[in-house]
Amino acid sequence: MTAPEERAELSLTGWGPADPHELPNAARKWLHRETGWTPRSTPAEALAAVRTAATQLPDSTSAALIEIVGDEQVRTDGPSRLRRGAGRSYLDLIRRRGGDVSGLPDAVVLPGSHDEVLAVLRRCADDDIAVVPFGGGTSVVGGLTGGAGEHRAVVALDVARLNTIDSIDAKSLLVTAGPGLRGPEFESRMARYGLTLGHFPQSYEFATLGGYAATRSAGQASSGYGRFDELVAGVRVATPAGTWQVGRPPASAAGPDLLGLVLGSEGVLGVITELTLRVRPAPEVKHYEGWSFRSLSRALEGMRQLARAELLPDVARLSDVDETRANIVLAASSKANALQALLRARGHGSGCLLIVGWEGGQETVGVRRRAASALLRRCEAVRIGRTVGQSWLSNRYSGPYVRDALLDVGLLVETLETAASWSDLMDVYDATRDALITCLSTPDTKPLVMCHVSHVYPTGASLYFTVLADRADDRPMQQWLLAKRAATDALLSAGGVLTHHHAVGIDHAPWLSREVGDLGVAVLHAVKDRLDPTGICNPCVLFGRP
Amino acid sequence: MTAPEERAELSLTGWGPADPHELPNAARKWLHRETGWTPRSTPAEALAAVRTAATQLPDSTSAALIEIVGDEQVRTDGPSRLRRGAGRSYLDLIRRRGGDVSGLPDAVVLPGSHDEVLAVLRRCADDDIAVVPFGGGTSVVGGLTGGAGEHRAVVALDVARLNTIDSIDAKSLLVTAGPGLRGPEFESRMARYGLTLGHFPQSYEFATLGGYAATRSAGQASSGYGRFDELVAGVRVATPAGTWQVGRPPASAAGPDLLGLVLGSEGVLGVITELTLRVRPAPEVKHYEGWSFRSLSRALEGMRQLARAELLPDVARLSDVDETRANIVLAASSKANALQALLRARGHGSGCLLIVGWEGGQETVGVRRRAASALLRRCEAVRIGRTVGQSWLSNRYSGPYVRDALLDVGLLVETLETAASWSDLMDVYDATRDALITCLSTPDTKPLVMCHVSHVYPTGASLYFTVLADRADDRPMQQWLLAKRAATDALLSAGGVLTHHHAVGIDHAPWLSREVGDLGVAVLHAVKDRLDPTGICNPCVLFGRP
Repeated sequence: MTAPEERAELSLTGWGPADPHELPNAARKWLHRETGWTPRSTPAEALAAVRTAATQLPDSTSAALIEIVGDEQVRTDGPSRLRRGAGRSYLDLIRRRGGDVSGLPDAVVLPGSHDEVLAVLRRCADDDIAVVPFGGGTSVVGGLTGGAGEHRAVVALDVARLNTIDSIDAKSLLVTAGPGLRGPEFESRMARYGLTLGHFPQSYEFATLGGYAATRSAGQASSGYGRFDELVAGVRVATPAGTWQVGRPPASAAGPDLLGLVLGSEGVLGVITELTLRVRPAPEVKHYEGWSFRSLSRALEGMRQLARAELLPDVARLSDVDETRANIVLAASSKANALQALLRARGHGSGCLLIVGWEGGQETVGVRRRAASALLRRCEAVRIGRTVGQSWLSNRYSGPYVRDALLDVGLLVETLETAASWSDLMDVYDATRDALITCLSTPDTKPLVMCHVSHVYPTGASLYFTVLADRADDRPMQQWLLAKRAATDALLSAGGVLTHHHAVGIDHAPWLSREVGDLGVAVLHAVKDRLDPTGICNPCVLFGRP
Repeated sequence: MTAPEERAELSLTGWGPADPHELPNAARKWLHRETGWTPRSTPAEALAAVRTAATQLPDSTSAALIEIVGDEQVRTDGPSRLRRGAGRSYLDLIRRRGGDVSGLPDAVVLPGSHDEVLAVLRRCADDDIAVVPFGGGTSVVGGLTGGAGEHRAVVALDVARLNTIDSIDAKSLLVTAGPGLRGPEFESRMARYGLTLGHFPQSYEFATLGGYAATRSAGQASSGYGRFDELVAGVRVATPAGTWQVGRPPASAAGPDLLGLVLGSEGVLGVITELTLRVRPAPEVKHYEGWSFRSLSRALEGMRQLARAELLPDVARLSDVDETRANIVLAASSKANALQALLRARGHGSGCLLIVGWEGGQETVGVRRRAASALLRRCEAVRIGRTVGQSWLSNRYSGPYVRDALLDVGLLVETLETAASWSDLMDVYDATRDALITCLSTPDTKPLVMCHVSHVYPTGASLYFTVLADRADDRPMQQWLLAKRAATDALLSAGGVLTHHHAVGIDHAPWLSREVGDLGVAVLHAVKDRLDPTGICNPCVLFGRP
């Protein structure tokens, strides 16, 4: 196991790493033509030079925490606090890039066991100190920037040291592990036993098991392996009210499902200190390929038919016309040019690209692939082949790195996502797109709004929007906040859900009651009050700042 | 739609119908040999002759309820109260058969809309009257016999009139319907649209959609179609605190899953007045067949391999040696004799019978069946053919009718169920069986304890025990209560869950905290207190009598 200290870290003002992606010239020109954006240098400030505010953690609390976790594991230095003080949303990055390091945790605490987490929570409850759990730092909804709320100070509780694998029941396909493990660390351990978890979100390289659970993450292969909440069989939670062990595999009808209350709780009920996960045999083969549809409506119908026939591939990722076009142009390669020519020749010049992937036993994959391919052909899709699929597979985590490059040249770059039933899906798509385009257009520029379907269900699908626009350098935060608000209002009105897999954080909190109702919010408050009576656990996310 | 009044009803002292099943002579002899049981006539008392206690419902409440739902829909006559006053557990039936009709609801109320349910709950909260929701009356865990608890009186809220189908979104495979619909009523409506829900528990003929949801039911085809909690996309709940609309298909990450709190809540939070269900295209073909394994351990390994390879049939139902033997003998037919001879010839004379069923498109069923069959053969299973499968299919709801006949001749007959991980499964099987055999043996008799695996998961499976024993005529309730307590303690200690699909009711309430922990119980109480501050909603189930 790599010691937490030796792991690659996200950069403080972006995704990283040190060696930045460069935006190719052709892409730059194309983006300029599409959006009217003026390429310019907008580098991030060097945060090393920025002074962080003095810690507000009382000395007595600090001493007590050191007593619990040890001297080394309570950190108040600037770099430690900076690293845990923000997620990676556009708003987080714009603030950071502008040198704004307000709202940092007053200290970082790294407990080494469940009991230490319990003790930290109790002490913080006694001393009125807020506790914000920290996993990978990849939140894109403000999950880490809530701050102290009405409390005296705020501590980031980093679960990095809770990174052991405690039991592997290969017979029952159940593995118990710590919340601090990152995806690649867990998968490499599983691989030794011929197992896999199969959870591959775009944040895979950095996000942690605990974060996946706390935010109800969905991975790129969730159609096949299941959303993260389906992969969790049980959790142990440290709460100010004590230890809560939840979940009994394989299945139970003993009262309501309490595990579902912990998943998606975003740290407001306590800290997940252990997870029991449902794993699977590692796939013998992975087969990824591309298909093309003539139009988005035909493509969505194809996705719906696949789901209805229970023939969904493990990965099914459908880009709309603008995203398809952008992907081909931005790839800026001879292969991409050849693909474009091929599609034009087939009458798919403004078509939609679908990436599909199957993973599993050789024979099963073959059978499923043939059946799905037959259905796709009946829906008038054209097979493009494996190169496109392999290319997607090898670039599946690259989006956030590319964003760094775009942020450096004066662009607004952000994503938002939702899901809706098949009946509402096109309305939600149109309404969201229209809202974004309206809000982000100026007399001289217009945004590029791209969308893909990332998760498909028999009842509906998710929509994942990526927005590029000329940044309003004088008011970049307000520019996005207005667009986000308009888009969220629009997608909710059209029947979309508030978030399909990004969670609530601070950014979505104002809309939570529209999604779950006032009584739903009241029920969540009742649960929180029982487990966290003084309200110290991540006090500003989910419900919003008090 | 059949009017609620015209539907077939469960008999008051058993399952029904008027025309009773008869125990064949050969079966009677075999059971005598196996158990030492003395066949005798133990008929049920005729309840028509039994006086029911006077209603305790205050006149003012009665008048207010009549104001809300109408004169016809508030009933205090004996037959109406008797019909809603018990479920169909062995304990319920033994009491009833002995003429004990204590603990009846003081009145039956049949609201015709969500708003009427809300108004009834509010009035009952004001007047301190407990409310026990009534669906099909098929509870086998005392879900209907809690009574008033500490309240002044108790009303049975029968959802029979909430039986409309309010929307069918065939494109999104989502159907919104009332909780009072029974399985066959719902399925026949779905069939007109080429759809199916696919939920077929043994109580299918009588149980209602609302009851399925309130108890987290699992059907016989749940391996394929999913447990009922997976089939629910949303519910509307009337609570004393107001209307709660929960669940947003297809999927959401906006905070914890609140839908899971309603499913399995057994009426303690309020009344489910509407469900949005995930349906599917009706299957083109259904293929059921039998297989045999040489031993239980080999058979369980075969089930585990099927699940692991994602090749589970939609129905997979594996009987242990004793249940296999009993099924063949009790069938008492020439076909059964021929089957027994065949199995002996194959060296499976004391083997385990597996029923498997596939439902779906012709081609898909063929593909899945061939792949699963190949795996079963590798696990040394022998295919017996379709006759056994068809026979199971046509008798799938007959168990409770047979029970009536067994109750008439001096037998104790009851079932209990659990689930465990594959690693714990044999321990749970042995421990439960041993406890039942020990408790129910006398110097002259021993029980017949049969078991089948009814639901299979990649992580484990369920175990469903059926017990037959010579009834202790002088203390039949105590006889079973002791055995049930010993079996439950044993299965929990060995790693089983408290209940896989029968729910908690009153019977399992003493063990709830062993399953979900004290903090889990506290969280459930906090939710209940928020939605039902005066505690009138089914006050004695789940948590037990106050």
